[in-house]
Amino acid sequence: MTQAHIELSPPPPLPEGALRIIPLGGLGAIGRNMTVFEYDGKLLIVDCGVLFPDVDQPGVDLILPDFEPILDRLGDVQAIVLTHGHEDHIGAVPYLLAHKPDIPLVGSQFTLALVEAKLAERRIDPYTLTVKEGRREQLGPFECEFFAVNHSIPDALAVAIRTPAGLVLHTGDFKMDQVPLDGRITDLAGFARLGAEGVDLLLSDSTNAEIPGFVTPERDIGPVLDSIFSKARGRIIVASFASHVHRVQQVLDSAYEYDRKVALIGRSMVRNMGIARDLGLLRIPDGLVVGLDEATSLPPDEIVFMSTGSQGEPMSALGRMSTGDHRHITIAPGDTVVLASSLVPGNETSVYRVINQLARAGATVIHKDTAKVHVSGHSPAGELLYLLNVVRPSNLMPVHGEWRHLRAHARLGVESGVPTENVVLCEDGDVVDLVEGHARLVGHVKSRYVFVDGLAVGDVGESLLTERKILGDGGFVTATVVIDSVTGKVVAGPTISAKGFSEDPEAFNPVIPLITAALDRAADDGITDPHQLQQLMRRTVGRWVNDAYRRRPMIVPTVVEV
Amino acid sequence: MTQAHIELSPPPPLPEGALRIIPLGGLGAIGRNMTVFEYDGKLLIVDCGVLFPDVDQPGVDLILPDFEPILDRLGDVQAIVLTHGHEDHIGAVPYLLAHKPDIPLVGSQFTLALVEAKLAERRIDPYTLTVKEGRREQLGPFECEFFAVNHSIPDALAVAIRTPAGLVLHTGDFKMDQVPLDGRITDLAGFARLGAEGVDLLLSDSTNAEIPGFVTPERDIGPVLDSIFSKARGRIIVASFASHVHRVQQVLDSAYEYDRKVALIGRSMVRNMGIARDLGLLRIPDGLVVGLDEATSLPPDEIVFMSTGSQGEPMSALGRMSTGDHRHITIAPGDTVVLASSLVPGNETSVYRVINQLARAGATVIHKDTAKVHVSGHSPAGELLYLLNVVRPSNLMPVHGEWRHLRAHARLGVESGVPTENVVLCEDGDVVDLVEGHARLVGHVKSRYVFVDGLAVGDVGESLLTERKILGDGGFVTATVVIDSVTGKVVAGPTISAKGFSEDPEAFNPVIPLITAALDRAADDGITDPHQLQQLMRRTVGRWVNDAYRRRPMIVPTVVEV
Repeated sequence: MTQAHIELSPPPPLPEGALRIIPLGGLGAIGRNMTVFEYDGKLLIVDCGVLFPDVDQPGVDLILPDFEPILDRLGDVQAIVLTHGHEDHIGAVPYLLAHKPDIPLVGSQFTLALVEAKLAERRIDPYTLTVKEGRREQLGPFECEFFAVNHSIPDALAVAIRTPAGLVLHTGDFKMDQVPLDGRITDLAGFARLGAEGVDLLLSDSTNAEIPGFVTPERDIGPVLDSIFSKARGRIIVASFASHVHRVQQVLDSAYEYDRKVALIGRSMVRNMGIARDLGLLRIPDGLVVGLDEATSLPPDEIVFMSTGSQGEPMSALGRMSTGDHRHITIAPGDTVVLASSLVPGNETSVYRVINQLARAGATVIHKDTAKVHVSGHSPAGELLYLLNVVRPSNLMPVHGEWRHLRAHARLGVESGVPTENVVLCEDGDVVDLVEGHARLVGHVKSRYVFVDGLAVGDVGESLLTERKILGDGGFVTATVVIDSVTGKVVAGPTISAKGFSEDPEAFNPVIPLITAALDRAADDGITDPHQLQQLMRRTVGRWVNDAYRRRPMIVPTVVEV
Repeated sequence: MTQAHIELSPPPPLPEGALRIIPLGGLGAIGRNMTVFEYDGKLLIVDCGVLFPDVDQPGVDLILPDFEPILDRLGDVQAIVLTHGHEDHIGAVPYLLAHKPDIPLVGSQFTLALVEAKLAERRIDPYTLTVKEGRREQLGPFECEFFAVNHSIPDALAVAIRTPAGLVLHTGDFKMDQVPLDGRITDLAGFARLGAEGVDLLLSDSTNAEIPGFVTPERDIGPVLDSIFSKARGRIIVASFASHVHRVQQVLDSAYEYDRKVALIGRSMVRNMGIARDLGLLRIPDGLVVGLDEATSLPPDEIVFMSTGSQGEPMSALGRMSTGDHRHITIAPGDTVVLASSLVPGNETSVYRVINQLARAGATVIHKDTAKVHVSGHSPAGELLYLLNVVRPSNLMPVHGEWRHLRAHARLGVESGVPTENVVLCEDGDVVDLVEGHARLVGHVKSRYVFVDGLAVGDVGESLLTERKILGDGGFVTATVVIDSVTGKVVAGPTISAKGFSEDPEAFNPVIPLITAALDRAADDGITDPHQLQQLMRRTVGRWVNDAYRRRPMIVPTVVEV
């Protein structure tokens, strides 16, 4: 695990009696979690999520795992086990089921309710198997046992997978809040029992492996909210993730305590909290939650708006409020806005923009930098060591993380006694075989980022994103001429147009004679091939732009023959 | 100060005996700090910095203050006082001096040395006046008194400005480390003397006003570095800001302690540390610092590379190392990399990309999330309250911050006893008059972001950035036809080309007949105006792209007449 990561060839055939593990997402970036297990010709998938794009993927809506390595084997898939209902674990299910809708989905009640709501929008009615902690299910050759884990969404599960090749524990996402709101702690005792039985391979959540120490209990946020609610004289607007039932519960509790009604705002917030209430995961005192109409008619000190938009999404409820574009709520001096949420890396600019707009409009904005209104859902290093010491795995494969997290987790593994050579540090597409108790990296399958952009999946690739980045940084300059297809003589142009380059309307005057001169010289040399002429125009414009501006717009020469 | 910010008209004439304050930068965003003071027809400028662009300003190199409101009054400018040598305080000086090179620059020895090095690159030899704490200088009608402040760069100053209109204290950037490495603490006693005299207006650093508490002393980083150095078995690479002399000093001290040589890497690091050493601000034991050639020939456990690139800049020394593109240093397993620096908002994606690349290559990467290797240079709320209570200003104008920081600072002002109506919360371009002891917002002057992109200043504006964002998100689609200028008949085309849109070579096949049909209908209707035909093509392509892809590329129709 101390080696640099090297490029690998396709894997050899899977030895008989061995278990193969292929992470198709979640290793190398946080998101699009998906792991494929193969035994005796059968496949089991754990999670199938999306990755949200950052500045390196401009214009992209979502990033999916690359299903290519298993597309011709979907008939062998016994089930998709979903550890919990976050988008980075369930968001790609509709895209996979679009290939084969009858793959069974296995998960807890809340997880399946969320994924079913998502699938209903696409009119897919999935086969499901509801499981809970303590249950065992035989899924083809994979015997799966489920364990409660505590996370930032209710009803999360870890899964132990038994095959004749050995016992594998996949934690899913977890932390070890010892006093969670719902009393449902991560089942360390169950993991200890597995440890005693002998865990051959542990796949464990690396998100916070770099961070020393332990998480603060979720319930410690309650008193902070109470303190904010006790001071607020105007309206209170709280934004958080639409799936964070326990965070919403605490907002409801504080509202109840301080005699405020609550209006839920945002489609996903309303939908998810409805599901949570129906499943008994969210306790709502009678009459506490009101509709938006009633809410806006109440005095400012009698209402809490519980909203989406904590990540600075411009089209979310909070995003619209911040720009004055929300239909029902206009931010005013005296309002208190609480972002009771993490700041997902990559969203900083958007989130701080929203906070600044709210502050400019007169609101007091409280967020995780200024008060303890958020705790992470992932175990930091101290808790990961507890898990490692209880499970005592023969082999460790850090999952769910960028390289910095995976490597930090690998170091924790070694510190806790996993032999260095048994820590398998790998990234998406790497192939790991568990053979006779030893997990080893044996090869690599192609695992591209698959981009969803609008209606199309997969027609946007890295080279196109490079074009977008060039265009986004420098705009483009077109140069068009019409030539006689027989003589090669210019009959119209050159005309220049540009976007994103300069607001000076005279900017291109100097380059037109340069293009004309270059084309004249080409004509003198008998060059009439449009492709060659285009190259010539590209060079001429490119050189001029570089000399005059030191910029690199995209240059688009067009030669039209008539 | 609890009001929402409203739009204002141009200011009235300045009343006789009054002082006018116009922030041209630094209020509403952190960067391009510049404040203009006007008294009796004369101007004094405090700071003249740049703002670094974020994702909202694609392709932009730098953002300058808008000099427009003072451009025709540069002859009235008595001096530019530079509080310290950070880019966001001195970076725009060359651009202002390009208009009038003989405006005197006033600052401490180190600050002036940095700005002179910068000006030398542009062959400007400025008029300078070196000042230090305790000095008073009469600059036209402005009597300036300078005070030591502690910050993340040596030799920083606050400035008190006396005119018959009153006493104004501008803190510059500061924190109140009580045990700084150089023993040069923020002169709270001096500020107390001003407070006793009566400070009519305080302009104070708001950067950390949202953050509760106090900064950790810079010297507490030393033991953390020692611990890292004591454990490292291979090479150590430390990245930090090239102006953070005290941070570099601590790296040198740890290297000396652990018998390692140090090589400085990066042009600005080498230059600034040379200046700091010459001015006695950096102590370098004989023989400790070696050249790159010697460094690369030493055993791994005998060398420290002190590098630039802590903000993830891809072309910096560390950025190149992370991608394997550095000419002399290839990251290898066993290397320890320390980012002993802040993470400037907006740089998160770049910084974590570098960290991940280093981790993937086998390095152990330590950064501020994982160990106490950085402390901020700006006072958080607890320290700002000390300052407010010592100065007891009649009026407070929070500066150096985004809206969230300014509003938090305003709240601290009110909590400390400044009357609410005397807290002047304003943004760039707002005009504040200090009249008979009362500071009031009286108007607004235009204060655009002035963008530097390549060699040109100011030819890129907001509408162009919007074009770049559209191009960067969705690419563009061009549609070109050649028509007969007499008959209006299509003689060639339509031809379609696109960049950043789709990798499917057949993508545009369906739209060509749609364009042809639309042009045919136009010809039947006798429409031959190229502009109308272009609109028609734009609509046709746009509708098709939306229906088929749900995307919004830029559509660029061209009609060439022959």
